[in-house]
Amino acid sequence: MRTLDFKNLSVDIQGWIKNYLDSANADGVVLGLSGGIDSSVTASLCVSAMGKKKVIGLGLPCESTPEDLVDAKLIARHLGIEFKIIDLTKAYNQFLELFHSIIKPNTISNANIKPRLRMIALYYVGQSLGKYLIAGTGNRAELAIGYFTKYGDGGVDFEPLGMLYKSEVRELAKVLEIPKNIIEKSPSPGLWPGQTDEGEIGLMYNTIDEILYRMDYNLGFQGLNINDVNKVKDMMKKAEHKLVMPPVYEITQ
Amino acid sequence: MRTLDFKNLSVDIQGWIKNYLDSANADGVVLGLSGGIDSSVTASLCVSAMGKKKVIGLGLPCESTPEDLVDAKLIARHLGIEFKIIDLTKAYNQFLELFHSIIKPNTISNANIKPRLRMIALYYVGQSLGKYLIAGTGNRAELAIGYFTKYGDGGVDFEPLGMLYKSEVRELAKVLEIPKNIIEKSPSPGLWPGQTDEGEIGLMYNTIDEILYRMDYNLGFQGLNINDVNKVKDMMKKAEHKLVMPPVYEITQ
Repeated sequence: MRTLDFKNLSVDIQGWIKNYLDSANADGVVLGLSGGIDSSVTASLCVSAMGKKKVIGLGLPCESTPEDLVDAKLIARHLGIEFKIIDLTKAYNQFLELFHSIIKPNTISNANIKPRLRMIALYYVGQSLGKYLIAGTGNRAELAIGYFTKYGDGGVDFEPLGMLYKSEVRELAKVLEIPKNIIEKSPSPGLWPGQTDEGEIGLMYNTIDEILYRMDYNLGFQGLNINDVNKVKDMMKKAEHKLVMPPVYEITQ
Repeated sequence: MRTLDFKNLSVDIQGWIKNYLDSANADGVVLGLSGGIDSSVTASLCVSAMGKKKVIGLGLPCESTPEDLVDAKLIARHLGIEFKIIDLTKAYNQFLELFHSIIKPNTISNANIKPRLRMIALYYVGQSLGKYLIAGTGNRAELAIGYFTKYGDGGVDFEPLGMLYKSEVRELAKVLEIPKNIIEKSPSPGLWPGQTDEGEIGLMYNTIDEILYRMDYNLGFQGLNINDVNKVKDMMKKAEHKLVMPPVYEITQ
């Protein structure tokens, strides 16, 4: 794995965030706080870049457990930012009810509604307040294997952590003095009770990180489990459409 | 304006659609039918590409007028495809109610919720049925000036009409034998009563088309109203962020 200077990295990302928001004439940033490490680190970087008055955190539970919000509140208080909780469960149930008579849903089609409703909520709050841009919280591992919902948690304005392996987000979190229990708990998208990223993906983040790192630097896969490598490659292939703009038919005449 | 052979164009786009869906192993296409020309033409092309059994149209009114659905039903019947109407108004109102106490919305932040709820509905139906991809209905003029909602009607899997000027969509519609009243009525996004594209943008589509055509082919702007040209350029600049993936911080160490 590569070695980064995380103090310098923190300063660089803050500068990049500030530059992006300034060039868009943005009034500030809105982001969803899940209580997890990625959104906590992103919020911390945005606060350092723009000042705590220009960062608004939203807690957007949707059929989720109250424990998640405890850590979201904790990080908001820790950073001194405004934090609002809006429970989306009613909107989610109302949406499902509308389709009840025509659709037999499945676990995935139901689960994808939630991050998409969160996307709507973040833009709704941001655009109601003025020109607040939406910070994404995806890391390199999640984005590469497509472990996010297209136009849901992938529907954001900028991605500060998008090139950082998950293990690097953890190191950055330490430098940013994110509370220890947030750094150490198992990552979860919070779409159903007991769900964890690593349980659902079937690979540990350290494994995914190492495979991506070898790919990114053309280092080969010696010493790695070839099934794991193929699994990551397969997920990356299936995720391709999530990482590019929708293809447009080009006139050839 | 360029001259295209619209019969050939129709065949080319159908081949492109079929190829894209086949390469994704898709079961079919879902798209929103508004009763307008763009979605009618897109539906017709998808039917010619995949067969009418693999195309599903959804009518997704949200506080909108019943007249819109008359033409959506008409085109669905004309093409012989399955058409379901789901009124999103209740989900929209439920969503607004959740934010009532914390947000003072504005016309734009409210209006953007609607195409985003439609996006959720299209993916929900598509993913519940199997692997149905979402066809976008944007044309070159709308996409270039950003006359669409990011992650709303812009949140699709592929854009068959994305490089066609609005006037070309009209010509293509004639070749495809789209009912005449659909071709001739004023385009509207249907976000509030009486809204028309041209009224809201403040320019006629023929003007926008001509300006874009001059830009696309480096022909200069002689004979055009410079205020119109500057207006289009300004809209294009503001729309840039809608036409690219969210920027990601790149590691420089």
